Amino acid sequence: MNLQAASKDQLSAWEQELSAAYRTAQGKKLNLDLTRGKPSAEQLSLANALDGILNGDYSANGVDVRNYGGLDGLPEVRKLGAEIMDVPVENVLAGGNSSLTLMHQTVLVAAYFGLQGEASAWHNKGTMKFLCPVPGYDRHFSVCEHMGIEMVTAPMTATGPDMDQVEKMIAEDANIVGMWCVPKYSNPTGVVYSDDTVQRIAKLAKIAGEGFRVFWDNAYAVHDLVDEPVALASIHEASIAAGTEDSVIQFASTSKITFAGAGVAFMAASESNLKGIKHALSFMTIGPDKVNQLRHVKFFSENGALQAHMKKHAAIIKPRFASVLDHLQAAFGDSELGKWESPEGGYFISFDTLPGLAKDVVRMAGEAGVKLTPAGATFPYGKDPQDSNIRIAPTVPTVEQVDAAMEIFVLCVKLASVRQALAK
Amino acid sequence: MNLQAASKDQLSAWEQELSAAYRTAQGKKLNLDLTRGKPSAEQLSLANALDGILNGDYSANGVDVRNYGGLDGLPEVRKLGAEIMDVPVENVLAGGNSSLTLMHQTVLVAAYFGLQGEASAWHNKGTMKFLCPVPGYDRHFSVCEHMGIEMVTAPMTATGPDMDQVEKMIAEDANIVGMWCVPKYSNPTGVVYSDDTVQRIAKLAKIAGEGFRVFWDNAYAVHDLVDEPVALASIHEASIAAGTEDSVIQFASTSKITFAGAGVAFMAASESNLKGIKHALSFMTIGPDKVNQLRHVKFFSENGALQAHMKKHAAIIKPRFASVLDHLQAAFGDSELGKWESPEGGYFISFDTLPGLAKDVVRMAGEAGVKLTPAGATFPYGKDPQDSNIRIAPTVPTVEQVDAAMEIFVLCVKLASVRQALAK
Repeated sequence: MNLQAASKDQLSAWEQELSAAYRTAQGKKLNLDLTRGKPSAEQLSLANALDGILNGDYSANGVDVRNYGGLDGLPEVRKLGAEIMDVPVENVLAGGNSSLTLMHQTVLVAAYFGLQGEASAWHNKGTMKFLCPVPGYDRHFSVCEHMGIEMVTAPMTATGPDMDQVEKMIAEDANIVGMWCVPKYSNPTGVVYSDDTVQRIAKLAKIAGEGFRVFWDNAYAVHDLVDEPVALASIHEASIAAGTEDSVIQFASTSKITFAGAGVAFMAASESNLKGIKHALSFMTIGPDKVNQLRHVKFFSENGALQAHMKKHAAIIKPRFASVLDHLQAAFGDSELGKWESPEGGYFISFDTLPGLAKDVVRMAGEAGVKLTPAGATFPYGKDPQDSNIRIAPTVPTVEQVDAAMEIFVLCVKLASVRQALAK
Repeated sequence: MNLQAASKDQLSAWEQELSAAYRTAQGKKLNLDLTRGKPSAEQLSLANALDGILNGDYSANGVDVRNYGGLDGLPEVRKLGAEIMDVPVENVLAGGNSSLTLMHQTVLVAAYFGLQGEASAWHNKGTMKFLCPVPGYDRHFSVCEHMGIEMVTAPMTATGPDMDQVEKMIAEDANIVGMWCVPKYSNPTGVVYSDDTVQRIAKLAKIAGEGFRVFWDNAYAVHDLVDEPVALASIHEASIAAGTEDSVIQFASTSKITFAGAGVAFMAASESNLKGIKHALSFMTIGPDKVNQLRHVKFFSENGALQAHMKKHAAIIKPRFASVLDHLQAAFGDSELGKWESPEGGYFISFDTLPGLAKDVVRMAGEAGVKLTPAGATFPYGKDPQDSNIRIAPTVPTVEQVDAAMEIFVLCVKLASVRQALAK
């Protein structure tokens, strides 16, 4: 379908044909949902052995996990975090059930209390800004909104954020105090940051100065769908090599490994950052749920158990991703109507329509029974300046449902594109 | 032992006798600990059935508790919170494993974000102050310190805070935005607020004005040691009757019911307060650990199960409290050397030495192998102006250990008192 080369008559013919198909689709009264970036019941069941795994033994090397205490979590579960994030265990803190909470707490402390004493609080600068690669994760953006932090954007590319632009922005604006990154299977584009990108991000603090922090949300660190996944370079090692260790704070969780609502969240940071965070945490809690942490230790206690477990997830997710990508390739592989990456892991596929069509497509799909994440949600303040990005989350529906939903999705993209061309 | 009536010779004789006994005690090289307000392993074991109680069924009335979602917790566990706090379930929010975290979050929101929109944030007043009944709970005070809230004090009496003084302070200082209360088996004095005190606290907002909030930490709501405990009047009903429902926020948890590190925390508040808190929580988390919440629902699903469970705790704690109180009564029942309440529940017994002796007693006991909470810890900024309050926490040691520790404690109180009298 080449819209630019098509005659008005050809466009009209396509419009009629697609409209008819769309009306037929509407008649089916479907109820499909591609909005939710969460594990399916089948995936969650892979970890059903968690409850009861302790077998009455609540002791972890002499620690009674039922009682208070231990602000940075059980040493044994911190090892699991170290394995997931590929960092030394001494840099790891294990928290409660939510890495979002750890991120919110860390931004709060850095902004208003100071990670290295009150004088280091970003708030002292007056205006605080975060650099947000777009499209990105809406809950990162909402943390900034809550904290009164302005957001400025740089585009994502196939190798990560556009680093020329990122470096330029940081050099020119001393109020940029932080940056969000989802470095592996980025939410939502699915790309893995290239080695060069990781190296350049590790060096950003040399441009930005002391208080700057990269929030490295490695939410999909071990969530590969292929047998030989692209390796993400170690930002930990890169930052040590660059002498910028304090500028990177990493996050991860088992939310999409075991239970989405009842997993264990982790952060990894330099000794100095951990000290600042733990000081603040000491006012907020007497410690995380060590019983649940011990369950996770037992569940992954065998060597290689984590990898074997993630392969089971991959087997469930893979056909859903394949369905989405096959439909997109078949419909738009030879046209300019859409652009997307082909992620080898993570939870999302991100699709860019022609400019100005994302809202229309989401609305049309909704009216034909296919719920999509609201257009704009992947941008700060919910505003996609191009109105073109749509996030597709295929993990919860069955493969058949993904197939049915994608048929309608491509139909809506085609119809909206043809109508736009006709209106020109 | 009547120090004032005693002659110098009598005091010297006592001093020599007590010093000899103290040296003998030191020689025993004891290692006893009365510092920790936490459940013993025996108590924790009462809830050992929690892990595995779900028997593979992770569904709560159709909700898959393993997945994301549900900011205010499972409806079923909110009922448990309603039972503990004696409030309607619609006023209850169930959180993670820490009521301290809920309190910290609520103070944070009220202070800097506003429970009812930004204009309602206490921060707008400039100076923020909290009224702290003393002696009180150190972690309440540290929340204030962390948040930049000044603390002003009013004395505890046998019926709760000195309400004449509380009302006067609030009338005279518009910067007092909140007040800490542990209304039942108060930490550390163990008193239960009288009906009159509860009524007067419910009406404080009429003196203080709109933003004022009472933080009603009902940590020991069901932690009775006697069969017919004194009932705490309902602050919920009192505040509704007074038209001050927004001024009271209640907290509780199962930390000292099931597992201290892995229980469920609750808060109860008016619709308006809950709305403000949930708005803020929506930036901080995707929801609490519903799997653990469901475990608690199952554990207490039988009618009366909670009460029966608390009786088992009482049976374990009671002889320890009895030991402390027996030793105090035997040693000081007929003298002016110390004052204490006789709590019928909770975790603490609070002892007031003659003025100026608490630090000495704590140091002397420590040097004879009995660890006590640092003197001053029960006051804001760690400063007891009278240097007389000592918190005794007898739940963790065995009864024999409590006995041995109390023998040394009373010896140290007597010796310090005699030495003080001699030095006059």
